[in-house]
Amino acid sequence: MAKVSIPKGTRDFLPEQVARRKYIFSVIESVFKTFGYLPIETPTMENLATLTGKYGEEGDRLLFKVLNNGDFLADVNSDDLIQKASAKVINQISKRGLRYDLTVPFARFVVMHQNDIQLPFKRYQIQQVWRADRPQRGRYQEFYQCDVDVVGSDSLMYEAELVQIYATVFRKLGIKAKILINNRKVLYGLAEAAGITDKFMEMTISIDKLDKIGRDGVRNEMIAKGITAQQAEKVLSLLDDTSLDTIEQAFEQLEQGSLGVREIRNVFGYLDGTVPELEFDISLARGLNYYTGCIFEVKVDTSAYPDFSMGSIGGGGRYDDLTGVFGLNNVSGVGVSFGAERIYDVMEELNLFPEDVTKDIQILFIALDEASHHFAFRQAALIREAGIPCDVYPEPAKMKKQMSFANARNVPYVAIIGESEREQGVVSLKNMISGSQRNATIDEVIEMMSE
Amino acid sequence: MAKVSIPKGTRDFLPEQVARRKYIFSVIESVFKTFGYLPIETPTMENLATLTGKYGEEGDRLLFKVLNNGDFLADVNSDDLIQKASAKVINQISKRGLRYDLTVPFARFVVMHQNDIQLPFKRYQIQQVWRADRPQRGRYQEFYQCDVDVVGSDSLMYEAELVQIYATVFRKLGIKAKILINNRKVLYGLAEAAGITDKFMEMTISIDKLDKIGRDGVRNEMIAKGITAQQAEKVLSLLDDTSLDTIEQAFEQLEQGSLGVREIRNVFGYLDGTVPELEFDISLARGLNYYTGCIFEVKVDTSAYPDFSMGSIGGGGRYDDLTGVFGLNNVSGVGVSFGAERIYDVMEELNLFPEDVTKDIQILFIALDEASHHFAFRQAALIREAGIPCDVYPEPAKMKKQMSFANARNVPYVAIIGESEREQGVVSLKNMISGSQRNATIDEVIEMMSE
Repeated sequence: MAKVSIPKGTRDFLPEQVARRKYIFSVIESVFKTFGYLPIETPTMENLATLTGKYGEEGDRLLFKVLNNGDFLADVNSDDLIQKASAKVINQISKRGLRYDLTVPFARFVVMHQNDIQLPFKRYQIQQVWRADRPQRGRYQEFYQCDVDVVGSDSLMYEAELVQIYATVFRKLGIKAKILINNRKVLYGLAEAAGITDKFMEMTISIDKLDKIGRDGVRNEMIAKGITAQQAEKVLSLLDDTSLDTIEQAFEQLEQGSLGVREIRNVFGYLDGTVPELEFDISLARGLNYYTGCIFEVKVDTSAYPDFSMGSIGGGGRYDDLTGVFGLNNVSGVGVSFGAERIYDVMEELNLFPEDVTKDIQILFIALDEASHHFAFRQAALIREAGIPCDVYPEPAKMKKQMSFANARNVPYVAIIGESEREQGVVSLKNMISGSQRNATIDEVIEMMSE
Repeated sequence: MAKVSIPKGTRDFLPEQVARRKYIFSVIESVFKTFGYLPIETPTMENLATLTGKYGEEGDRLLFKVLNNGDFLADVNSDDLIQKASAKVINQISKRGLRYDLTVPFARFVVMHQNDIQLPFKRYQIQQVWRADRPQRGRYQEFYQCDVDVVGSDSLMYEAELVQIYATVFRKLGIKAKILINNRKVLYGLAEAAGITDKFMEMTISIDKLDKIGRDGVRNEMIAKGITAQQAEKVLSLLDDTSLDTIEQAFEQLEQGSLGVREIRNVFGYLDGTVPELEFDISLARGLNYYTGCIFEVKVDTSAYPDFSMGSIGGGGRYDDLTGVFGLNNVSGVGVSFGAERIYDVMEELNLFPEDVTKDIQILFIALDEASHHFAFRQAALIREAGIPCDVYPEPAKMKKQMSFANARNVPYVAIIGESEREQGVVSLKNMISGSQRNATIDEVIEMMSE
């Protein structure tokens, strides 16, 4: 018998973990719903033609590919096999891959179902994705993504709405969070101001690392990419201005820069001071280069939790052409995602899960003889009908054995039934915390438990 | 641009479908919980070593295998490649497969986590499975399974409990169902009575087809398998007896047969007449041969829905050695599953989904100018805080355009805001069904909607 195991980078979830994960998703989902977002689901397997080339070279490598069924080698080019040319053989033996994110499948969905949906289309999607990353602490090959997007409108109202959604979700979860906002056009304004619009991408990639490599690191990287020391200094000096007012003045004459500032102002305008968690952060860049307008990132508010460190727990932004790659142009969209796995870790570490999330059976019935066992079974049915989770020990075993099961299962109440209880039509209800014990009818038990 | 598509046998789900599917799962899950069953989740990918050989030859063929990442051909035997020996190459280029059912992963889970769980362990699991079956109407390569099992006890109380779960779920869903019960030992009793215990499996496989091929078909098949005409006639005559009383008498002298009857009696005893949906059906055999005790099958009660035809919507039974294959012996279990895809079809066809399952936004805000749009956005926030789903049209467009969006989205109420409403701090609330319209404050709207 080989040792039993699961693939590296994957996980089993025990009941408590499932309950806690479901709690996070249910809070998020309930907020999505009140904001009028609709759920969709897409298949685990997509055609490789849909996935390949959408995530860069590294993404292509990290895609899990599914082997064609049947005699999959039959039609493969023999030379490729003899040469063991893995890269050439892949597409000959695999047509399908596992979902790598929710964005590409969503774009594909919008194109395929454009006649079934109304634009602007507000959708959310909470499903697993798979990536062949090297497994390490906190990084898995299978994990949930939780995305909310609206496509088919360029209204900045949606940026404001998504900020509200972030704020509402994290307030409900009890996580004090900071929501950072910036705009790709503001970043472009930095390049405009420093006269390096031809080096915009290089500049952005460097700025994105400010947290990690510091000011000197960013300066050196920019210079290494052909930006002059003076230009680099100009960029860095503007990064010091954390206030939107100062940037507004500095960018007054810049076409893109001033437009970006106006867009951010507009978002704050909709919110009208109702989301104090929202902060302008000119150094926020976000790696992906498909964003075109506002960009967002959510972090745990470290001023509320000193000594706590955690990367971003959410992010997103405006993209101007989600579906173009599938042949449908001019569909602007904006969306954000929730880092569900990290949110779980934050809540676990800060002890934020409400206790009743993992609430389990409330009563365990313990019967002392065969007839009482049948009686207990029928009493349990009544309690369950009232919606109260309970259980019956599977047989009229020794009291000690049944009580030790009750303890192991952490049950708050035990209902003991022997001959005399059965004859009186009651149970002997024992509070497992206080130790107190008294007779009660099932109606009394239901009433007590419902409180 | 290639035509966009998804793999054959897979599906996208539109918002209404997702909502309806979630409704079914949430009803089932809430029942599982009141009965004290705990949720677990296992990874999508399992090691092929875990899956292979567990589902028979056909199952091995229908497993989706995931290609190893990186230079997967590097270490493959060159002769196997030159000969295009697909079957030999599979295990050299693939270590993982997609979950094929929830039973094998559950067994693997119990073995791996035996120190984290309490026996008897009552678990439910609602996750997708993948099979490379030829796609056809109603048969998919990716679909949900919904299993509930208890392992670590041979108490017949659990058989009774699972019958209650079936009855409760189908009552809650509004599906009139018949729950059929039989017992492998009763089937063995048929073989005992006919003197063909050496042909037990052959007999069972034939009986299992009674619905499809009829009495004559079953007789011919049994005879073809070496059962004499007289023996076949004996079996068939006993199949006519639909009452447990008659079978009890007929099996009085048979060791296994009478034991099976007593087990069924015991299940009925626990239920004490509370589940009239439960019926003894001696012809129920179920194909799988790992069942050892009671077996179950659920069908739509065709007497309640004439002209309606649908295969079984649930099934399961007692198995004596779930985890033996992974090295943990003597763990008896019993479990049933819900055919979620078929249940969906039944509910769709019989129009059983409650209307509010697909309930969407209740109000759409329509603003007639920029300032009113900002006002509308803030009013919407208040309504959403009260938990009422609503939406704001993304811009102060022409009335007609906004109203036609409201119609397309099927919104029951529209809240119109122009200069005068904004100045009065009200909305003009229009009932889209009756056409009536009146001014109301947001508090009034919330009160009205909460009713």
